[in-house]
Amino acid sequence: MAKYSPIHPIEYRYGSPEMKRVFTRESWLAKMLRVEAALAWAQAEVGDIPRESAKHIASRANTEHVTLDAVSVWEARIQHETMAVVKALADACEEPHAGMIHKGATSYDIQDSTLGLQLKGAINIIEMDLKELAKILVAQARKYSETICLGRTHGIVAVPTVFGFKMAVWASDIRNHLEQLKEAEKRVCVGKMSGAVGTMAGLGKNGLKIQELAMQKLGLRPAPISTQIVQREALAEFLLLLSQIASTLDKMANEVRNLQRSEINEVEEPFDEAKQVGSSTMPHKRNPILSESICGLARSIRGSAVTALENVVLEHERDLTNSSYERITVPEVCILLDEALKRTKHVMKELLVHPENMKANLERFKGVIMSESVMLAMTSRGADRQWAHERVRKLAMDSWNKSGAFDKLLKSNTEVRKYLNEAEIDSALNPANYLGTAHKQIERVTASVEAYIRQN
Amino acid sequence: MAKYSPIHPIEYRYGSPEMKRVFTRESWLAKMLRVEAALAWAQAEVGDIPRESAKHIASRANTEHVTLDAVSVWEARIQHETMAVVKALADACEEPHAGMIHKGATSYDIQDSTLGLQLKGAINIIEMDLKELAKILVAQARKYSETICLGRTHGIVAVPTVFGFKMAVWASDIRNHLEQLKEAEKRVCVGKMSGAVGTMAGLGKNGLKIQELAMQKLGLRPAPISTQIVQREALAEFLLLLSQIASTLDKMANEVRNLQRSEINEVEEPFDEAKQVGSSTMPHKRNPILSESICGLARSIRGSAVTALENVVLEHERDLTNSSYERITVPEVCILLDEALKRTKHVMKELLVHPENMKANLERFKGVIMSESVMLAMTSRGADRQWAHERVRKLAMDSWNKSGAFDKLLKSNTEVRKYLNEAEIDSALNPANYLGTAHKQIERVTASVEAYIRQN
Amino acid sequence: MAKYSPIHPIEYRYGSPEMKRVFTRESWLAKMLRVEAALAWAQAEVGDIPRESAKHIASRANTEHVTLDAVSVWEARIQHETMAVVKALADACEEPHAGMIHKGATSYDIQDSTLGLQLKGAINIIEMDLKELAKILVAQARKYSETICLGRTHGIVAVPTVFGFKMAVWASDIRNHLEQLKEAEKRVCVGKMSGAVGTMAGLGKNGLKIQELAMQKLGLRPAPISTQIVQREALAEFLLLLSQIASTLDKMANEVRNLQRSEINEVEEPFDEAKQVGSSTMPHKRNPILSESICGLARSIRGSAVTALENVVLEHERDLTNSSYERITVPEVCILLDEALKRTKHVMKELLVHPENMKANLERFKGVIMSESVMLAMTSRGADRQWAHERVRKLAMDSWNKSGAFDKLLKSNTEVRKYLNEAEIDSALNPANYLGTAHKQIERVTASVEAYIRQN
Amino acid sequence: MAKYSPIHPIEYRYGSPEMKRVFTRESWLAKMLRVEAALAWAQAEVGDIPRESAKHIASRANTEHVTLDAVSVWEARIQHETMAVVKALADACEEPHAGMIHKGATSYDIQDSTLGLQLKGAINIIEMDLKELAKILVAQARKYSETICLGRTHGIVAVPTVFGFKMAVWASDIRNHLEQLKEAEKRVCVGKMSGAVGTMAGLGKNGLKIQELAMQKLGLRPAPISTQIVQREALAEFLLLLSQIASTLDKMANEVRNLQRSEINEVEEPFDEAKQVGSSTMPHKRNPILSESICGLARSIRGSAVTALENVVLEHERDLTNSSYERITVPEVCILLDEALKRTKHVMKELLVHPENMKANLERFKGVIMSESVMLAMTSRGADRQWAHERVRKLAMDSWNKSGAFDKLLKSNTEVRKYLNEAEIDSALNPANYLGTAHKQIERVTASVEAYIRQN
Repeated sequence: MAKYSPIHPIEYRYGSPEMKRVFTRESWLAKMLRVEAALAWAQAEVGDIPRESAKHIASRANTEHVTLDAVSVWEARIQHETMAVVKALADACEEPHAGMIHKGATSYDIQDSTLGLQLKGAINIIEMDLKELAKILVAQARKYSETICLGRTHGIVAVPTVFGFKMAVWASDIRNHLEQLKEAEKRVCVGKMSGAVGTMAGLGKNGLKIQELAMQKLGLRPAPISTQIVQREALAEFLLLLSQIASTLDKMANEVRNLQRSEINEVEEPFDEAKQVGSSTMPHKRNPILSESICGLARSIRGSAVTALENVVLEHERDLTNSSYERITVPEVCILLDEALKRTKHVMKELLVHPENMKANLERFKGVIMSESVMLAMTSRGADRQWAHERVRKLAMDSWNKSGAFDKLLKSNTEVRKYLNEAEIDSALNPANYLGTAHKQIERVTASVEAYIRQN
Repeated sequence: MAKYSPIHPIEYRYGSPEMKRVFTRESWLAKMLRVEAALAWAQAEVGDIPRESAKHIASRANTEHVTLDAVSVWEARIQHETMAVVKALADACEEPHAGMIHKGATSYDIQDSTLGLQLKGAINIIEMDLKELAKILVAQARKYSETICLGRTHGIVAVPTVFGFKMAVWASDIRNHLEQLKEAEKRVCVGKMSGAVGTMAGLGKNGLKIQELAMQKLGLRPAPISTQIVQREALAEFLLLLSQIASTLDKMANEVRNLQRSEINEVEEPFDEAKQVGSSTMPHKRNPILSESICGLARSIRGSAVTALENVVLEHERDLTNSSYERITVPEVCILLDEALKRTKHVMKELLVHPENMKANLERFKGVIMSESVMLAMTSRGADRQWAHERVRKLAMDSWNKSGAFDKLLKSNTEVRKYLNEAEIDSALNPANYLGTAHKQIERVTASVEAYIRQN
Repeated sequence: MAKYSPIHPIEYRYGSPEMKRVFTRESWLAKMLRVEAALAWAQAEVGDIPRESAKHIASRANTEHVTLDAVSVWEARIQHETMAVVKALADACEEPHAGMIHKGATSYDIQDSTLGLQLKGAINIIEMDLKELAKILVAQARKYSETICLGRTHGIVAVPTVFGFKMAVWASDIRNHLEQLKEAEKRVCVGKMSGAVGTMAGLGKNGLKIQELAMQKLGLRPAPISTQIVQREALAEFLLLLSQIASTLDKMANEVRNLQRSEINEVEEPFDEAKQVGSSTMPHKRNPILSESICGLARSIRGSAVTALENVVLEHERDLTNSSYERITVPEVCILLDEALKRTKHVMKELLVHPENMKANLERFKGVIMSESVMLAMTSRGADRQWAHERVRKLAMDSWNKSGAFDKLLKSNTEVRKYLNEAEIDSALNPANYLGTAHKQIERVTASVEAYIRQN
Repeated sequence: MAKYSPIHPIEYRYGSPEMKRVFTRESWLAKMLRVEAALAWAQAEVGDIPRESAKHIASRANTEHVTLDAVSVWEARIQHETMAVVKALADACEEPHAGMIHKGATSYDIQDSTLGLQLKGAINIIEMDLKELAKILVAQARKYSETICLGRTHGIVAVPTVFGFKMAVWASDIRNHLEQLKEAEKRVCVGKMSGAVGTMAGLGKNGLKIQELAMQKLGLRPAPISTQIVQREALAEFLLLLSQIASTLDKMANEVRNLQRSEINEVEEPFDEAKQVGSSTMPHKRNPILSESICGLARSIRGSAVTALENVVLEHERDLTNSSYERITVPEVCILLDEALKRTKHVMKELLVHPENMKANLERFKGVIMSESVMLAMTSRGADRQWAHERVRKLAMDSWNKSGAFDKLLKSNTEVRKYLNEAEIDSALNPANYLGTAHKQIERVTASVEAYIRQN
């Protein structure tokens, strides 16, 4: 470490302290030791080793007694990470207790249970992040449930909606991710004590009981069955779920970026006007850099998580090809997602919303965006749907090409006037009359998201 | 079609008739029409259109009255797929009923509900495949629960296990995938009737009720909230779940391939000796081509499914960038996974297992694979674990380099003999004495898998 | 085929006839037969089989004498694709010539040389597409080399540029892809005649000469060395290059979509106003559906191509896990890219450009986008850069928040006026004075792209 | 940094000092400063700033005068990384020179040129690694050019080859990667000075000359044309090329793993018997952990590199969504590939090859692997190929099922004996007689690889 300044951005740029604490090398060692202690405790409970050995081991199984440096020295010597931890722990224990460490266990009993603890730690933080984000979205959905704005499809103005509706959609997405996380958790937060090929031969006849007790001590479920390792399906599920969550954040941040475009300017992400520099050369710039970074982080997350699928395919009772990927990607993806979640919470909570610009934009496109409304008003008065669609489409095209005189074109068109009078045309052109069940849907969805969070 | 012979292997090589039927162009059209009929029915129920119109539309909304050709003619003319279906259906209906079709709906009300029906059809078949596969694995796990064989880690012989244990691990994996599929289903099998931007403005004040009734008719859940489209998170979840399932099949098939290696020869996938040609030039070859193809299909599946994550990120109330991918990949991935599942069922059910070769291989490596057993026997007699590990490791190395005399090396070693007599060494070297809880775990897991299938 | 209407969109929706012809099942068979004939010819040349046998085989090695049906019958019987072709060809030949077919060859001598022919056919079409696209972009870059428009970064208006500059950047990108394609071609368009494990043992002492002659006949390079198969590195390179090209098209189409946004409206992709329906429910819509589909196709292409990297890793002298992927993805990716290229050519050639809207947008943001220009004008009169940046930034912020009075704010600011008089401020605010070397760069790049196309 | 021990394995586990030095935060800052100095120098050369200012800036543009800490303080204040560097450099310079820094430049003039320098540094190291690896493979190919061993396809023994042939195939693969790297370099090692949207407006009329001179000073090519940023196509090409190289290493390492399987045992990767611990619980284990780690690293590399394709698609004159990915992945992928290359060199150079085990394995499968040879001997005596294939296939099947009596079965079969006498059968069964042009191919390929390295 002395020779280099850091290289990877999770060391100096990204990541909340709480999530990083789950994955530092120091914290990894602490978990490895905790698992060794849990194993010893379980073996003592079933009578396979003396209780006082288990107690003694537990008293030394921490990073005060067993330092990273001590482990590194052993690893350099024997080139085996788990055995290095075992040896360093043994050095910290007195005889005859030292001889009771890691009895009948294989490296991955310890490593995989440690991974289970890391995943549990990460899931707790992500769950909290998601709940807080859902609450922010619920609040914003309600706050803006009557703020009329343009709906856009294909990048083209479509028909009116309300700004809170977007937030309600996202709240519903996040609620679903919470549900997925809860469902995945029971498969993901597992550990094992099953020995070299899964048969527990090294642990003897008490193997199943030892595994059960040790996992209970650690707050993990025992894997239903394992080889030398917990099967990697659940890890893939977890990392792909994180990719899905990241992609939803990407969607949300991308929307902020698009609505912040200079030509639209309906929202702006928080920006500290007093001192923040938007561009080194263009003084006026207020760039949506937080939102852009959320999109970027999401790409990194989903990009690197998919390799998890390749690593499901391990040979026989295990091979080691998954190891480097997991060392690299599990911390990276968890830390980057946590960063993206916290940035998203900040953006959504502090979002500057400009209802006046939404109104101006509506006004600008008033004609064309209400063409569906006019067509439907005509059909409700007896016009044929296809026929009306075609008539209104042509008038909207004329209006678009010459920009804006849609209400006049409608009012002076004899075919339209067969079905609608002037007042009816004006009413059909009023966005507030064309919001369907938007408010009701927002109410229903936000209530349901709140109820979900309360109950889970 | 007339000008080309087919190009894509799902047209002429891969795919079961049942799964292909879910996705043919003809079947797509039938579903589109069924959704239009459901919409009309729901609108009649709430009184928005006459009941006799709904009945009339329902009577024509099938591929006998509305042909693919008729739709193609319209699509060539107006370049809009859904409108082409609507127009062709209108052509098949009498007035005034024709004018009641697709009222207040947007294209993706129909398209996304059709997608929901396709996904439901696919899930049903995959669920059936998975259940049958799980049953086969349960049966094989029990059949071979006492068939001792080598366990291998890193490709190197490790300690003994039983062949049925592998099958039990896979049965447990498949059970988890069934659970995931069940959990995902409620988010995936949805449809919508929410109009151009999700507000239901076109459907009027009865929008929520119309959506609920139409979905009920179709056997789908209404999406909790949607924009012009159902949000793509659930589709991504579904496709990534298929990738996970495929990767488990890859793992299983890869194991068959490795165990079928000429030098191992413990299993062979089914092969029709009477006529099948293994190689165009090497007459003796019996290649695990089914298993290789399962691995290959799995790679295609997981490779193309990950783009689903990119497609979560759609702009505003929708953009169209997801469309071509979904047309291509949803059928492809479902059909390829179904093919892979059916091939896996066949391989697993008809697998040729050679217990005599398993025994011969065990015999060949008897020495080294029992070194853990010897070490643990020594520690159970009071030897220090680390010390015993080091002693036995050196003897195993000697044995490995000179091949095979492990029992003699042990018996003539004074340090070993301090803890174990000859009979104890022989006992420690007997694989059958070193299977831990393998049988018990197989029993527990297979019972639990069976129970899950029975209850779900 | 009789039982199903097609499933995959490349069968009924995507793909030019020319590219599809490279990959139909019929065309595949024709190439397989052509390779068998080339092998026989080469073996006759070196005297290993009679010349008249080679001639006879060549006369029958076509799909008139050997039908897909005949091959299918054999394949159903012996479950080996290449041997089925050999058997069907033998059936079509007279004795003793029939016995001279496929002598000493292995299946993948034929299959991989056939793949080489397919790749060559695809590369020719893609190269032509790229050249035509580059020419269109060059023409458009020159046509719009003085059409001033807003430059945007982070979605926020930045400083002026010219519309032709965007086209010049893309022309340069496409030129680079042409260069990459040329470089890759020599590694990609290869075939082999090297037998079961690459040693040519089956072909005898003339093996190297036979391979050289057969490849010469086919217009392919012989692979430098191969096992049973050509190593898959080059195929991966090819497919990843297609992914890169697709991603550039994605970038271009995405730009069209953004510039076509209703609020920007600077360009529109071609649209047939007379009859094309933009939306089934919103009559005014002119959606950039071609551009959206290009983005969508690009995602499918890059998504499925990356699995090619997994397939580089084949065991020993070959395994079969690459086979299904290649059957599926090589045609799919080539056809989809060809479709995307042809759509892009159409969009770029027929693009509706609205200079009047570009001008209006410039006018709207005139103040803020010229802030860099003002700052630099101040520094050129001696102001400190950092200090000027800060002063102008604050005025731009004020202008932004109150919208538009930037010129007045500048002219009335005493600090600014220390360095610039009114005329100088006006000049600094004129976009046409702030285009740097844009014209010159367009000239240089388009000339260089043209020269490259001419010379390659 | 103080609060955490490191998290990411490139900080404490993977990566050579030389490659890490390219990417540390400190080295990044040094390059950023070097680019600022080059810009100033170029501006002085064309007379836009005083030469003494350029000299002064150059004298301070290093990490002795401008520390990471100073930059961090600025970045915390203004939240803009490049401006923080500019401000810290300005602090280190005297007036009036400080005011001449970064004149007319935009942040990404500096950032992208810095990236170009990093990529150049990385390419140099990778090229060296590849050349050394190619030389090792050439030497091993020659050393083992007569070491007969089993060829295997589908994991099943096929026909004989020589061990050196495998090495020659890999040498050829690596040569191709060197060629690709050389071809890519001219597109990848570029920088730019083109201002906020690419027009060079900020740099004034000398823009093109300034860019040319600054890049010349830095040893980079100027990008042919750029927007605010160098287009990301070349970065994607580079990262995907690294993925391809990684996949070839994966293939090589995977072969070592398979040949090291206990049941095959033809090679072993280097292992320090004296002290290295293979397993924490199984003392005899010598696991191919280096090769497994190479496979694992390759998966991480190709997994994370593909996101580069997504980042080609940036909006307008740039957006920022590529930024976090590049910060994370460029160093990570370069460092991991370098690690994988160095491990591969070590494994290939020190590989333990066991010709005696290769011979024993050949002997074991002698019968079946020579069946092609027997069939071809029969056809060379006039037997029909198809007929002979079928006859020999059946005898090989009989031999396989009863194991080993192939020579006796052949000699006692009257149909075989019509074409071959006993001596001819023995000759046809001798592997050394069935190696085709293996030696010659090795000679040719290794000579060609050597020539390529010498000339490039």
